[in-house]
Amino acid sequence: MTAPRTRRPRPGTPGQVLAWLPDGKPADVYSAPCPSRAALDRIADKWTALIVGSLSTGTKRFSELRAAIDGISEKMLTQTLRSLERDGLVARTVYPTVPPKVEYHLTDLGLTLEAPLAAIRDWAERHINEVNTARLRHDLQSRGTG
Amino acid sequence: MTAPRTRRPRPGTPGQVLAWLPDGKPADVYSAPCPSRAALDRIADKWTALIVGSLSTGTKRFSELRAAIDGISEKMLTQTLRSLERDGLVARTVYPTVPPKVEYHLTDLGLTLEAPLAAIRDWAERHINEVNTARLRHDLQSRGTG
Repeated sequence: MTAPRTRRPRPGTPGQVLAWLPDGKPADVYSAPCPSRAALDRIADKWTALIVGSLSTGTKRFSELRAAIDGISEKMLTQTLRSLERDGLVARTVYPTVPPKVEYHLTDLGLTLEAPLAAIRDWAERHINEVNTARLRHDLQSRGTG
Repeated sequence: MTAPRTRRPRPGTPGQVLAWLPDGKPADVYSAPCPSRAALDRIADKWTALIVGSLSTGTKRFSELRAAIDGISEKMLTQTLRSLERDGLVARTVYPTVPPKVEYHLTDLGLTLEAPLAAIRDWAERHINEVNTARLRHDLQSRGTG
């Protein structure tokens, strides 16, 4: 039996129930203890957006990811890749060479995240001049009234 | 004259140039000093995703936002609203009542961000069971081989 699609339980928040948890509760990012809130925290992250985007053009080695993502530290790349692997979004292939060759690619689940994250990256690039203009105006006004 | 749409300058990263900065450089989230990187950091954020989503159903007061977004602290809501205001995504209306009534709504620029962030929130809810299954499998395997 498929659970009926109902309105989200929290008032004042948009959307319908998209999935049900094993305990029978609806997945709801607006509920702090819902595991989907933690998942949102993981995917709504600039490094996740940049890594998933970089892997969307194909399998990459660690060094290739570092080169593609300007400014990411080795530690941050390692940590984020581990989280993405744990969450089933990225898979790691280790080739038994000396030294071992390690490659990363998006899983089927990770591929479903590529389009939403591409839209976020694209928004940042497409609207950056509007954001900068708004900031300039805001800071000038604050200075004027402060 | 409209600048030609070219491939992004950084190798191994996806996408086309979507906007040009006043200095003539292409907007590129994969470049650390590009202002679009900082904008990506701001919008790829769970609180931004939840606030913008909550405002997508209409104008809200501070207390209504706090009620809709379970678990957000007063400080975090204040900080994130200020950043969103500065970036031109949210506007604040102050009514001269006693005490003053303050309402928040999405600007035209903020409205363009609603669909991309809704896709991120929806992904977290729709795929939470797959993510949890992957985590469980990963943690069991780590325990087995560790």
